[in-house]
Amino acid sequence: MGDMIRDSPPAAAAAATDTETQTRNKLFLGSFIHSKTKEQLEYLHDAAICVSACGTIVAVETDCDLKRAEAEVLPRLGWTVGDVEVHVGKEGQFFFPGFIDTHVHASQYPNVGIFGKSTLLDWLNTYTFPLESSLQDQKKAKRVYTACVKRTLAHGTTTSAYYATIDVDTTNLLADICLALGQRAFVGRVCMDREGLCPEYYKDESAADSLRRTRETVEYIRTIDPAFELVAPILTPRFAPACSSEAMRGLADMQRELDVLAQTHISENEGEIELVKELFPESESYTDVYDQHGLLGEKMVLAHAIHLSEKEADTIAERGAKVSHCPCSNSSITSGAARVRWLWDKGIDVGLGTDMSGGYSPSILEAARQAALVSRHVAMGLKGEEKERAKLTVEEVLYLGTRGGAKVVGLGAKVGGFEVGMQWDAQLIGLPVVDEDGEQVEDGNVDIFGWESWENRVAKWVFNGDDRNTKMVWVKGRMVHSRR
Amino acid sequence: MGDMIRDSPPAAAAAATDTETQTRNKLFLGSFIHSKTKEQLEYLHDAAICVSACGTIVAVETDCDLKRAEAEVLPRLGWTVGDVEVHVGKEGQFFFPGFIDTHVHASQYPNVGIFGKSTLLDWLNTYTFPLESSLQDQKKAKRVYTACVKRTLAHGTTTSAYYATIDVDTTNLLADICLALGQRAFVGRVCMDREGLCPEYYKDESAADSLRRTRETVEYIRTIDPAFELVAPILTPRFAPACSSEAMRGLADMQRELDVLAQTHISENEGEIELVKELFPESESYTDVYDQHGLLGEKMVLAHAIHLSEKEADTIAERGAKVSHCPCSNSSITSGAARVRWLWDKGIDVGLGTDMSGGYSPSILEAARQAALVSRHVAMGLKGEEKERAKLTVEEVLYLGTRGGAKVVGLGAKVGGFEVGMQWDAQLIGLPVVDEDGEQVEDGNVDIFGWESWENRVAKWVFNGDDRNTKMVWVKGRMVHSRR
Repeated sequence: MGDMIRDSPPAAAAAATDTETQTRNKLFLGSFIHSKTKEQLEYLHDAAICVSACGTIVAVETDCDLKRAEAEVLPRLGWTVGDVEVHVGKEGQFFFPGFIDTHVHASQYPNVGIFGKSTLLDWLNTYTFPLESSLQDQKKAKRVYTACVKRTLAHGTTTSAYYATIDVDTTNLLADICLALGQRAFVGRVCMDREGLCPEYYKDESAADSLRRTRETVEYIRTIDPAFELVAPILTPRFAPACSSEAMRGLADMQRELDVLAQTHISENEGEIELVKELFPESESYTDVYDQHGLLGEKMVLAHAIHLSEKEADTIAERGAKVSHCPCSNSSITSGAARVRWLWDKGIDVGLGTDMSGGYSPSILEAARQAALVSRHVAMGLKGEEKERAKLTVEEVLYLGTRGGAKVVGLGAKVGGFEVGMQWDAQLIGLPVVDEDGEQVEDGNVDIFGWESWENRVAKWVFNGDDRNTKMVWVKGRMVHSRR
Repeated sequence: MGDMIRDSPPAAAAAATDTETQTRNKLFLGSFIHSKTKEQLEYLHDAAICVSACGTIVAVETDCDLKRAEAEVLPRLGWTVGDVEVHVGKEGQFFFPGFIDTHVHASQYPNVGIFGKSTLLDWLNTYTFPLESSLQDQKKAKRVYTACVKRTLAHGTTTSAYYATIDVDTTNLLADICLALGQRAFVGRVCMDREGLCPEYYKDESAADSLRRTRETVEYIRTIDPAFELVAPILTPRFAPACSSEAMRGLADMQRELDVLAQTHISENEGEIELVKELFPESESYTDVYDQHGLLGEKMVLAHAIHLSEKEADTIAERGAKVSHCPCSNSSITSGAARVRWLWDKGIDVGLGTDMSGGYSPSILEAARQAALVSRHVAMGLKGEEKERAKLTVEEVLYLGTRGGAKVVGLGAKVGGFEVGMQWDAQLIGLPVVDEDGEQVEDGNVDIFGWESWENRVAKWVFNGDDRNTKMVWVKGRMVHSRR
């Protein structure tokens, strides 16, 4: 079983990776911001974080500059000053945990922003299936997947839960690309074998075919990343209407056997919900379909979860399944407005997904922004205290994009925050600084006047920031992106 | 009366400006895209547009390259080849009309993205009034207004309808800055004299004071731009709850006398609507308040218009008043979701406003994107054909940001499209091109794979584009922004 897909205790995780040192020990100095709780960001200024060569955080020191780090912290770790790579966050910059994209179709990347007036079921047939099907062309797949991984890294996404296509070879290629470019990833071959909904030109031949080809990808990933340290497989029944009962049961068995993550879609669109009702008359609800097929467990990532009943949400909470909230997608293809506060109140873990290309943006920062806005559309339909509570704050949407997402993909103890024992999956965010003449030295869409509190600077980043503010990105201690 | 604030017939507009030649005649070659109708963009490829030294479009030629332009078009205009400044749109680039921001508080610019969980009335007291009040400091005002005008120009906004503050000197300074930086602008001194709602530290002393200080700004702008060619005054009663009846009636009289535009807010927030009901018990509705005070005419720009009744919308349509739709703002401060299709069905002209800093973004492209998304949230509450119709297309939101906005500020015959007689208020948009190896040569957030139709490229720009794609911006033929 892979280390990556288990919430290992931090010490164990550190030990497991200490053998494969490829980079130097690192010292980061400056401001660090991360979620302390859902409601609160922690601001560590004038702090130091030491990251071992294998990418694990081994020290977090407050009130620490280079001098103190060299005099006290490095010696304590047994590190030699000259051997350590030092990164100093400049004025206006801060280190932030890398973003987690808990739901993204790498294979749909070329279609971002292209959806017309469609909704889920016609969108699949018009835009999505033809493109996905065309990616069995290796050359095209390489281009699309490389663009997708590079682009999302540039937006600070350090972990992605990917849907590829039904094709084994190019799904494996996506795993290769993630490993080579250094993005932490769950890579899923899409299972869709049901007659009727799946187009003839783009479906698995049978349930057995679905399972066999899924296992091929799992085994391939084991050859390139044996302990699933960076890249891991994820079982991917597309969604109930596209899967036979036999395939879903087979995938549930496979999950128990391999102890890996799984992902699917749930309750995205009203037409889809009606279809599920028709196709699975013996099930009480959409949620019940997955539950009856053995797929609803702690290692299941459910995308959307918009129109759930109280009972469905209770069942999901009981089983410990997770939800990926995809606000850009839900607004774009008119699916609905998911109720994050309500899901949280039920005790369900929630993360953010770009859901490209139902969602138009590769950026989890944009997803966070839209999560704030969509929560206000949810609030518009409520009254009094409920209305007030429905709104998500800047702190809460950043939690969704980092720690929340980490929990959704089972990495809550490993990434999403800055604690000793966690991995250094991080981004360096740069906001403008103002010189003495009030002039800004910085390209980008955020204007800082100099009088803003740190809280307000972070709010400005959330609402007007973009990839220009993401100066450097690290995964497991390795720098995987930088901008001039 | 100024030329700028009148919908002059194109020929007259051209004649009026021919005297003040400051720049050279210009020839633009390449692809031009603009709205033909609300529903349709016109794509002119391999075309030429000739712009006179005073900024007026004097020829639009299809099927025209440099050779043909020099051989046939320039001689026909009596232009000497060597004297003409030539701009050639490269592959992947297209000229697009400049954006019109029909509602923006320049004085709130430093607060973009900062709004917490507030709604209109507490947002005003917590964030807005303190900042606006502080801008009587000339140095601070200069910095804020310069940043706002430069930033919005960089996003392709060629015309803005600005709210400044109650302060005359710094409102005049905003007019100076617009003129110097070359942005077409309506500059409004904010009128707010009502006891109670306006804070003691930030209000006009009396209705007479409101009117006197408004006239001071009008007269000042007349000294810097006598014909209101580029910068014009706009009468600005903040909104009914902040204005006495006497001030509103006085402004209505002033508007009849001066024949200038006016702007205010309407039906943004439910608490605000209740307040208006209390303050104006003799009026039937919020709309009726403005109507009874003589302010509801063809030259009134009403921001928001979210919660209007059928009867109110009918009245607005009858009077010919215009609406500025501000989706970013309406979602951010949980005001509601305005029904653009419904307003259009009533026969009301609608444009887009950033409404900074209720809105978080300086970009009308972002406003267009959010207009599309908000229209889908409106659709979520409807059924059948109505649901389908409520959704705005890419074409429609771009119309809102260009020709729609131009009509809202009374410039429909002058800017917003590329026809002979109109002014050259335009932006050059650059999207990536793909070289033979499938590599992109372009910074920015749009990925082009090479197989996209022009329609899909435009959709990609609307959903993932930003100021990096805005390569050059012209107002009245003058280049006012360019990026490397």
